[in-house]
Amino acid sequence: MKMDLNSDLGESLGAWRMGDDAAMLGIVSSANVACGFHAGDPAGVLRTLRRARDNGVVVGAHVAYRDLIGFGRRNMDVESADLIADVIYQIGALKGLAAAAGTSVRYVKPHGALYNTIAHDARQAHDVITAIREVDPRLTLVALAGSPLLGWAQDQGLRVVAEAFADRAYTPAGTLVSRREKGAVLHDAKLIAERMLRLVSDGVIEAIDGSLVAIAADSICVHGDNPDAVAVAAQVRTRLTQAGVSIQSFEVAAP
Amino acid sequence: MKMDLNSDLGESLGAWRMGDDAAMLGIVSSANVACGFHAGDPAGVLRTLRRARDNGVVVGAHVAYRDLIGFGRRNMDVESADLIADVIYQIGALKGLAAAAGTSVRYVKPHGALYNTIAHDARQAHDVITAIREVDPRLTLVALAGSPLLGWAQDQGLRVVAEAFADRAYTPAGTLVSRREKGAVLHDAKLIAERMLRLVSDGVIEAIDGSLVAIAADSICVHGDNPDAVAVAAQVRTRLTQAGVSIQSFEVAAP
Amino acid sequence: MKMDLNSDLGESLGAWRMGDDAAMLGIVSSANVACGFHAGDPAGVLRTLRRARDNGVVVGAHVAYRDLIGFGRRNMDVESADLIADVIYQIGALKGLAAAAGTSVRYVKPHGALYNTIAHDARQAHDVITAIREVDPRLTLVALAGSPLLGWAQDQGLRVVAEAFADRAYTPAGTLVSRREKGAVLHDAKLIAERMLRLVSDGVIEAIDGSLVAIAADSICVHGDNPDAVAVAAQVRTRLTQAGVSIQSFEVAAP
Amino acid sequence: MKMDLNSDLGESLGAWRMGDDAAMLGIVSSANVACGFHAGDPAGVLRTLRRARDNGVVVGAHVAYRDLIGFGRRNMDVESADLIADVIYQIGALKGLAAAAGTSVRYVKPHGALYNTIAHDARQAHDVITAIREVDPRLTLVALAGSPLLGWAQDQGLRVVAEAFADRAYTPAGTLVSRREKGAVLHDAKLIAERMLRLVSDGVIEAIDGSLVAIAADSICVHGDNPDAVAVAAQVRTRLTQAGVSIQSFEVAAP
Repeated sequence: MKMDLNSDLGESLGAWRMGDDAAMLGIVSSANVACGFHAGDPAGVLRTLRRARDNGVVVGAHVAYRDLIGFGRRNMDVESADLIADVIYQIGALKGLAAAAGTSVRYVKPHGALYNTIAHDARQAHDVITAIREVDPRLTLVALAGSPLLGWAQDQGLRVVAEAFADRAYTPAGTLVSRREKGAVLHDAKLIAERMLRLVSDGVIEAIDGSLVAIAADSICVHGDNPDAVAVAAQVRTRLTQAGVSIQSFEVAAP
Repeated sequence: MKMDLNSDLGESLGAWRMGDDAAMLGIVSSANVACGFHAGDPAGVLRTLRRARDNGVVVGAHVAYRDLIGFGRRNMDVESADLIADVIYQIGALKGLAAAAGTSVRYVKPHGALYNTIAHDARQAHDVITAIREVDPRLTLVALAGSPLLGWAQDQGLRVVAEAFADRAYTPAGTLVSRREKGAVLHDAKLIAERMLRLVSDGVIEAIDGSLVAIAADSICVHGDNPDAVAVAAQVRTRLTQAGVSIQSFEVAAP
Repeated sequence: MKMDLNSDLGESLGAWRMGDDAAMLGIVSSANVACGFHAGDPAGVLRTLRRARDNGVVVGAHVAYRDLIGFGRRNMDVESADLIADVIYQIGALKGLAAAAGTSVRYVKPHGALYNTIAHDARQAHDVITAIREVDPRLTLVALAGSPLLGWAQDQGLRVVAEAFADRAYTPAGTLVSRREKGAVLHDAKLIAERMLRLVSDGVIEAIDGSLVAIAADSICVHGDNPDAVAVAAQVRTRLTQAGVSIQSFEVAAP
Repeated sequence: MKMDLNSDLGESLGAWRMGDDAAMLGIVSSANVACGFHAGDPAGVLRTLRRARDNGVVVGAHVAYRDLIGFGRRNMDVESADLIADVIYQIGALKGLAAAAGTSVRYVKPHGALYNTIAHDARQAHDVITAIREVDPRLTLVALAGSPLLGWAQDQGLRVVAEAFADRAYTPAGTLVSRREKGAVLHDAKLIAERMLRLVSDGVIEAIDGSLVAIAADSICVHGDNPDAVAVAAQVRTRLTQAGVSIQSFEVAAP
């Protein structure tokens, strides 16, 4: 058995720190690295990429809407010509920095509001797919398990990877419980780790109503933006490893 | 005889237009394309890159300080770690857009205050050189004819190209007359074209005091940010072509 | 009879020019001046404010979403705490520049996507109303004639002014024909001027189906972002003036 | 005896936290609040202003170069027209937010590179002075004790306040020891508190060579961007208060 652990990294901005990239790069197998539109100044991103290379962690482009102040979490109605070019620009910029760091970009995982929107919005989803195909069709797209985006991207020839969220509650239908609802975010590290082990071994997660829901996921997203989150991520890794699950990316890291 | 003509393009920003890229891409052999730090939104830059490809015009990265409001014309004391990463980021972003446009980035020409600073400031010059070497050492650096930057870059293994400015007056020492002085900028299209022909054929420009100064240049920068400038650029091309000079880039455009 | 003519000004950005503020300030009675979020660098805005003062033109704050690249034309889902503070910040900034220019801000007219959204979206409308009340409740709000926003603002104690658009077609219901439909934007200067005269004298506009629709408007928005637009604006002013309509703002300009 | 304690606050940016404004507002008598150019999103700034009002802390505008990524710490060669308008814009924006928070801006303290530059650069100093005079000549300017800026501003009719830095070493000439030199920054809370008490009671600070240097300061700057800094600030306040020094601003807070 094997599983990928991914996390959002490189999200500091100049004098402002966010997350503990050094700690997380000892836990995850894939790093979703900010590209400057929602977070990440080039020098900070370059440092994170060098650490990712040193740790053998695979790098993906964490592309977003152009919205530093809103951290890419606000829906924006971006026209196709702009969205396509914005995504290409960000992937290209991260490819440049990755080359300088001695690694390479292997996948794309949209961030925040863009992630949520393209999970179901066909127009913006197609724009992101087009961007990836135009800049580098070998890049894998990481998307929400169960979302129509997975099929749309495959239809266009992209390799896709479905991901589950370690610290989120699921509905019986296999979708995420909205953050506005009680119990949407889990905090108990041991419980989270057990849930993820069950996901890996049985392909199911216990939904918020107690029923079991099948989730097909090849990657698990763990957060690392505070000390508790890092502890949860470490617990997930430890529990999976103890159970014989190999933590490895769906891609091979650059030499 | 042959000579390269280069111009700054892709400098519109969203709703704001600047220059006539379509016209200039019928005149020049090399396009210095904005990378988003001093000018250029990704969608607009992508359109310019597609036109450059259609016209067989070679593309370079017009990297700059991060300063949209100042159009990259203000000196900034950027630390090495930041300047290196900023330049890599911009080159990478343009490479991504160029790939999507079916062309490729072949050279780097810094813009505005960064251009002027690194012509003589060894620290920032070295940062730009380091950035190019780290992201893609095959890229040529375009720099001011006669500047120490040319030697510094060659010492680090970069290919360099020296450029002259079509519409600028020169001192007897071969440096540019400061824009603050009278007569620094030339406007007479015929005179400018004759001066450039003399540069190509004899390797000299008449300095502001009437003396002849030797300028070793493999590229001529022509401006295109207003209708008069486009007319001057066209005149330079026509005069050179009539005299048997082939207008071609120092690089080969991507197929 | 009297009528206000307003126009969007101060929309240049550093090296990028937009519109002909000097010409428009000889035509309009009210200037909607950009506040830096969708357009307008402080030095350029200050120049426009000084010209407005010299021409006795009343100044309003043209507040917008924080989106330079999209020129404030993209819908953004901004949370209330952010939207309220963003609007206050912009009004305050323009008040500071206006004080330096020897004039003052008398009204607020939201721009672009924010304008369209709050015409009907109660949550964001209330945020803008709250912002105005908190920073300066004496400011008038300019809003789309016929929109529910007018009532919402009045209910909160704000003075409101309804505006019509000179160059836009209207539906029989008195709403604007969507820009996506044919005939949405009018270009014939004489026709536009006659329509506006009829609006002033009879309170009606001929809708796109030929029927007459009543529009209660105390201000007419004219555009000035290209030479044709300036000509249209001038024609409107001339036609109204010839018919004895006094062009004057709904507010009194600062001394 | 009385003394003002000031600190840089409101420096968070959207999702990025910086400093502990709530703690510091229980310690200082004056808050230098970020205006959005080097730090500070409007909603976060508004929250800090409300807390300042609740604590009876006087508010000043912490104006800066437009440089979020560099946190306003990078020298920029900004032309006078731009620098004047940028400073007015920032002061105006903060005035707007302060009005909404039920307080008001009473002084201006430039930040970072702008602070250091105008301490001795007459051109940029004059620009900042001009900006303050144009937007609100009642505003006090806080500047480095012993700097020529104090005299320049007084000559132009501004009220000035000189400040000392609690955690910085001084040269025998009364200037700050450069951060590049060893011992430039002090960390021992008790030592710092004793030094500041001596400054208040005797008007002297022990310079880095052991000599005593006279410093005329009406305000002491304490930092609060990390837990240690907050502890140092608290120690300074406690030590001064114990010795009978009243901690109060050089201005009166808005009601």
